[in-house]
Amino acid sequence: MPKDEVRVSPDDRGYYFGDGVYEVFRIYGGKLYEKAAHMRRLEHSAREVRLPLPCPLAEIDDILERLTAESRLAEGTLYMQITRGEAVRSHPFPAGAASVLMAYCSEVVRPKLTMETGISAVTHEDIRWLRCDLKTLNLLPNVLAKQTAQDHGVQEVVLHRSGTVTECSASNVMIISDGVLRTHPANHLILHGITRAVVLELARGLGIQVREEAFGLDELREAEEVFITGTTVEVTPIVRIDGQPIGSGEPGIVTRRLQTAFEATFR
Amino acid sequence: MPKDEVRVSPDDRGYYFGDGVYEVFRIYGGKLYEKAAHMRRLEHSAREVRLPLPCPLAEIDDILERLTAESRLAEGTLYMQITRGEAVRSHPFPAGAASVLMAYCSEVVRPKLTMETGISAVTHEDIRWLRCDLKTLNLLPNVLAKQTAQDHGVQEVVLHRSGTVTECSASNVMIISDGVLRTHPANHLILHGITRAVVLELARGLGIQVREEAFGLDELREAEEVFITGTTVEVTPIVRIDGQPIGSGEPGIVTRRLQTAFEATFR
Repeated sequence: MPKDEVRVSPDDRGYYFGDGVYEVFRIYGGKLYEKAAHMRRLEHSAREVRLPLPCPLAEIDDILERLTAESRLAEGTLYMQITRGEAVRSHPFPAGAASVLMAYCSEVVRPKLTMETGISAVTHEDIRWLRCDLKTLNLLPNVLAKQTAQDHGVQEVVLHRSGTVTECSASNVMIISDGVLRTHPANHLILHGITRAVVLELARGLGIQVREEAFGLDELREAEEVFITGTTVEVTPIVRIDGQPIGSGEPGIVTRRLQTAFEATFR
Repeated sequence: MPKDEVRVSPDDRGYYFGDGVYEVFRIYGGKLYEKAAHMRRLEHSAREVRLPLPCPLAEIDDILERLTAESRLAEGTLYMQITRGEAVRSHPFPAGAASVLMAYCSEVVRPKLTMETGISAVTHEDIRWLRCDLKTLNLLPNVLAKQTAQDHGVQEVVLHRSGTVTECSASNVMIISDGVLRTHPANHLILHGITRAVVLELARGLGIQVREEAFGLDELREAEEVFITGTTVEVTPIVRIDGQPIGSGEPGIVTRRLQTAFEATFR
């Protein structure tokens, strides 16, 4: 149906509590990229917050495929969220509520310019809850972090817990330090990015040493290269952090290799 | 308008991000209880997440007063939330979006039975973000905590950070230990409850020594009395925690005095 005609109930638990989970899929060449991985993560998020899916995963898969086909988009995103449904406001899980699924496609072009030139970032304390592995609708801290970037005239925020780098406001962050690729382990403190997983596998395939190991702000600032990974940003270099250049201040050679390898996965 | 006719946009940032703040007011004798304190907290929450109020506070006040009067409720609650409004989904604050205020009244009777007999609780790790002083729509951890209580067949969860008690899933918690009333200080780790503030003032007035000082799980379990405070629960004794009785397993004498004093503030 036309998005203008979609109307959510004020009693939807997504609206009261952010009580829901979501996924953003990338569409490349008219197809959902890494669909299976997104579906697994959706299942994980839903299971951990004990949110019943509105129908079996295979049916959700069908809905998303139909939506993608009907959108006729070659390049875009598919946004999907599932909330715990409509019920009189009360914290515990409601009896008999039906989960509400909403999904739509949007045209989104690849961020070629920023992938080429790199972006700037600032660092900021990570004050989120301790289940950042769950892709839920409780995104206010991410909103505030992203706004902090905007306030500083930069594109991203690198978050850290008391000096230990976790991820960015809506992407994962990786560094090249002494030729080794390092990124925070996929535990409860970061989102387990689909692009993150693809890039780590590509790096290993290219013979780059990979360590899923936390690093500090000092190592971030002194890294040879820094880049972010994410569904829409793909592999985007960070060339400046808190006003200081990373390495030469230009996108690095390993980042470039990973960008090329990543592009080859959907070309 | 009738609640059934209210329809929220799927692009409301409350629905995507939980990007909003809220208050729950108590109605006693047809009047909004401690209205000024709630309005101050609303202003604080909105300012800290940089959410523009849809109109001056005095106008919101008028709306709430009219709503309360038209509800003709003697005893109830007024729920109000304000979101950052409708915009294409993107994390940073949207340009030109209009904040959306929703408010309604419900009949809610005083929980006389549980105030009389007390409730049971379980303890659980507090995994929320580090701005629990803000009353925002990011309530999924509170939902999960409250559900944990329900799963254990009890009414509340006492949250703790690595053993330091903070508050409950939707109320503040206080103990009487060696005759002294103790409760977590009103910093970024707990909601600054309106009832909490009223009760602390009443306690001081009754000559009870008050210490706003964090305490641990051991002190909680060995306390003479434990009770929670909140807009709808007022002053409710906790008589069992994790299956073990608190003190004699009956509501304590200080708790009783505070209940009586609290009731006198609106009778």
